[in-house]
Amino acid sequence: MSRRVPPSRKQGLMMIVSPKVILTEERGSSEDRNAGGSRLFENLKDEVPLLQSRQKGVKSGLPLPDLATVEEEETVDLASKDEFPAVGEEDKLWVRIREEARWDSVKEPVLASYLYSSILSHGSLERALAFHLGNKLSSSTLLSTQLFSLIIDTFMEDDGIRRAVREDIKAVKGRDPACNSYSQCLLNFKGFLACQTHRVAHRLWNQGRQSLALALQSRVSEVFHVDIHPAAKIGSGILFDHATGLVVGETAIIGNNVSILHHVTLGGTGALGGDRHPKIGDGVLIGAGAIILGNVKIGEGAKIGAGSLVLINVPPRTMAVGNPARLVGGKDSPAQLKEIPSQTMDHTSFMKGWFDYVI
Amino acid sequence: MSRRVPPSRKQGLMMIVSPKVILTEERGSSEDRNAGGSRLFENLKDEVPLLQSRQKGVKSGLPLPDLATVEEEETVDLASKDEFPAVGEEDKLWVRIREEARWDSVKEPVLASYLYSSILSHGSLERALAFHLGNKLSSSTLLSTQLFSLIIDTFMEDDGIRRAVREDIKAVKGRDPACNSYSQCLLNFKGFLACQTHRVAHRLWNQGRQSLALALQSRVSEVFHVDIHPAAKIGSGILFDHATGLVVGETAIIGNNVSILHHVTLGGTGALGGDRHPKIGDGVLIGAGAIILGNVKIGEGAKIGAGSLVLINVPPRTMAVGNPARLVGGKDSPAQLKEIPSQTMDHTSFMKGWFDYVI
Amino acid sequence: MSRRVPPSRKQGLMMIVSPKVILTEERGSSEDRNAGGSRLFENLKDEVPLLQSRQKGVKSGLPLPDLATVEEEETVDLASKDEFPAVGEEDKLWVRIREEARWDSVKEPVLASYLYSSILSHGSLERALAFHLGNKLSSSTLLSTQLFSLIIDTFMEDDGIRRAVREDIKAVKGRDPACNSYSQCLLNFKGFLACQTHRVAHRLWNQGRQSLALALQSRVSEVFHVDIHPAAKIGSGILFDHATGLVVGETAIIGNNVSILHHVTLGGTGALGGDRHPKIGDGVLIGAGAIILGNVKIGEGAKIGAGSLVLINVPPRTMAVGNPARLVGGKDSPAQLKEIPSQTMDHTSFMKGWFDYVI
Repeated sequence: MSRRVPPSRKQGLMMIVSPKVILTEERGSSEDRNAGGSRLFENLKDEVPLLQSRQKGVKSGLPLPDLATVEEEETVDLASKDEFPAVGEEDKLWVRIREEARWDSVKEPVLASYLYSSILSHGSLERALAFHLGNKLSSSTLLSTQLFSLIIDTFMEDDGIRRAVREDIKAVKGRDPACNSYSQCLLNFKGFLACQTHRVAHRLWNQGRQSLALALQSRVSEVFHVDIHPAAKIGSGILFDHATGLVVGETAIIGNNVSILHHVTLGGTGALGGDRHPKIGDGVLIGAGAIILGNVKIGEGAKIGAGSLVLINVPPRTMAVGNPARLVGGKDSPAQLKEIPSQTMDHTSFMKGWFDYVI
Repeated sequence: MSRRVPPSRKQGLMMIVSPKVILTEERGSSEDRNAGGSRLFENLKDEVPLLQSRQKGVKSGLPLPDLATVEEEETVDLASKDEFPAVGEEDKLWVRIREEARWDSVKEPVLASYLYSSILSHGSLERALAFHLGNKLSSSTLLSTQLFSLIIDTFMEDDGIRRAVREDIKAVKGRDPACNSYSQCLLNFKGFLACQTHRVAHRLWNQGRQSLALALQSRVSEVFHVDIHPAAKIGSGILFDHATGLVVGETAIIGNNVSILHHVTLGGTGALGGDRHPKIGDGVLIGAGAIILGNVKIGEGAKIGAGSLVLINVPPRTMAVGNPARLVGGKDSPAQLKEIPSQTMDHTSFMKGWFDYVI
Repeated sequence: MSRRVPPSRKQGLMMIVSPKVILTEERGSSEDRNAGGSRLFENLKDEVPLLQSRQKGVKSGLPLPDLATVEEEETVDLASKDEFPAVGEEDKLWVRIREEARWDSVKEPVLASYLYSSILSHGSLERALAFHLGNKLSSSTLLSTQLFSLIIDTFMEDDGIRRAVREDIKAVKGRDPACNSYSQCLLNFKGFLACQTHRVAHRLWNQGRQSLALALQSRVSEVFHVDIHPAAKIGSGILFDHATGLVVGETAIIGNNVSILHHVTLGGTGALGGDRHPKIGDGVLIGAGAIILGNVKIGEGAKIGAGSLVLINVPPRTMAVGNPARLVGGKDSPAQLKEIPSQTMDHTSFMKGWFDYVI
């Protein structure tokens, strides 16, 4: 359950894409903007190969990939679980995301400018994500350019975060049947975006930069409706599905490969400090609206049914349901799970026997 | 329960209100703005009749309606349920909304500029709604002008959406005792605004414009905290009350004249695709925080109590309450509802007998 | 339980900090902004004493306070519960908040510009709060300058609101173990910010300015995900913890020193108006996700467990848990609480006996 924090390794100087490009574009007249979709894509045809040439092994930018090619690629073809490309190496996941974005920008000119500034103009997944987060979390008093720098610097200093970003995006695509592409997750999934911002805030917190970490937590709570204390420890391969209303307290720990639905609370109790929040084991699935309170352990591979209220430990590979929660199969001989619930995302079959009984 | 999608009928060319007017206004100095309320209304006195003269049968813009006149008009006087005015015809609902907005702008100069740009400067309900949604859903990378064009074009191409917008706004005013005017619903109710954006996203989805539909879903989830997959089918006469945290999955279907409170989940189960979300019948009422999971049917005119967890079918005109849910009256001879629950909005009387028993 | 509304007392003319300063700053080039942190703080060193000289008894702005000094000050040293400083008097709470902000701006240059514009450039707590709320609640059609004026004017006209702001900020710091400083609450806690905006909206509502009050409610619902009808009456010493999804209906009343967690609903029932929402007594604690419906009384000092569904009265100093809720100890001889639950924030110990029984 402990979070792997590999030794920080400076990745050398990185060229930051100038935010001026985007600022200038934003200042264009509204006529320019409406026409921007197709015009930008014309420019894109010339620029994309240039941008891509910074990466080794990237397919030539032209001609555009046809959809069949994009779709026949398998999830498992991407960089393996414990690796990510060093600077200069081929980055299959990023190549795939760019192909998806290029395809969408051809099919949907209304989005071309958006896709260009959010994905296609960037040289790496990390920069695209940092730019997107900087835009979304900025306010009139917290500038997007400052946030961009802060986030990209943190990504570049922490291999563990870079790995986790990649494992999370694959977890979302692999487990959420409504997620059709990696670019959709990167651009649209507020649970994913909130989780990556938390990774940045958590590192800042551990570096003694509490006030900045808390400012990030607050913006994520306002913009993505996900309230995770920056001290909370979160593993990788995380899916926060829908995500609205998720609350994770200061001393909570979430293991690896966990799936958590919206409106879930990992809450504390009492007005005093100390270790007072839940510890969630690897592979756990927590259904929508479940409330888990206090310093309790949810064992690895356990399932917590939607709408459950849990105040005591739940053994590994068992299923707790209801308010107050009961173990399926009974307290003394609970039924045992054989599959990993965070990956099957089966929210109901284990509850139905119990449910048929009561309605 | 199926959603009526009438054949698309082009309504002829529509003049789009230039967004420049608003952009120019926004660039005014802060002194202008503070004074703007009353000054704008002076201008308004001259402009309103001009704007209104485009519509047949509109009452003369001056003098201002007195509140008594506004209030004696009955909800039922408005355009009947299955009709909406063709271009050029009188539009009673829109006339009423403008009168409300003019009255408010006289009473509350602080809001005059807001009401002018959001309602009074527009020639139709559809344009006002498209402008308001464009403003609210825009971001630094998705421009309000693009969104305005996209939304107004969709409204104008789809009679079914135009009808549904009107039935929804009447449903909110008719069923929510905290809603005092149509303009209040149009401007302030995020459930209404989220639902209308979903109607646009759903049409785009069905036209094969998935990436754009998903971008709209994502913005609605961020801005209104309502997460409706664009493939979900939603009837008309819908009230999403309070709306924070509502989640509606990809294969869910919601019938006509349904009322759903905040924090409700119509969720799926499993990591595979396929038909995996609830089907909600006509006239159903779903209380706050209820969670309904899987491909189950909630029969027409049924009631789901607040905080209930429902995993199996609920028969028509019955009431399910609790976590796990039980039928009021018992499984074998459940009590039968005579009134339409989505209209009575009675969340508690049916639960009290059950409740007195357990506390 | 009734809310004390002291007679409005004009505080004489107040100089409003010109919003031009901020507008000008925002128009600075991006280079200026990136450099802004440290440069602004240089300016700050000169300006802070000037700003502070308007207040009697403020410590000299330089040298910077060391953290030890800041931390050894006790919560109880601040202005006593029922008093707040008149204009010109020393304001210990505000002095403390400024010290925290100055300390953070030295430690964290990224935040210096933000802290300067949000706290350090203002002459009083009320102005800082009004500026912060104006920024957060503004939109392209509701200007931050208008909102600032509206909010600061309301604060200055209503002693009761000024008192309540101070009691709330102390309640948050005193009861939430994750809140380390007053400035953190002022800047980051959306429950606190939503509550103070409600106080403004409630006064406007009572002055007959309904449309403006409803516009504020709507913006708070969009920006902070807290939906409180402006007619609802709320006492002082309030903690809305996490706050996402809180819904408080039109005829609800919340007493003094109440703590309410996120996802709580104080909801109505029926489509008719009238007194239809809960009344919450002094000192009550309501756990996450609890739903209380109808015109029922939660007696003073009662506890409502997380995830509970409550439809009938709960006696004072008792504990209701579960869906449907039961009294701990049983209906006929419920256990009695000796401590004030909103202050202990004990969400679980009273539920565990009940819980051990059922799992």
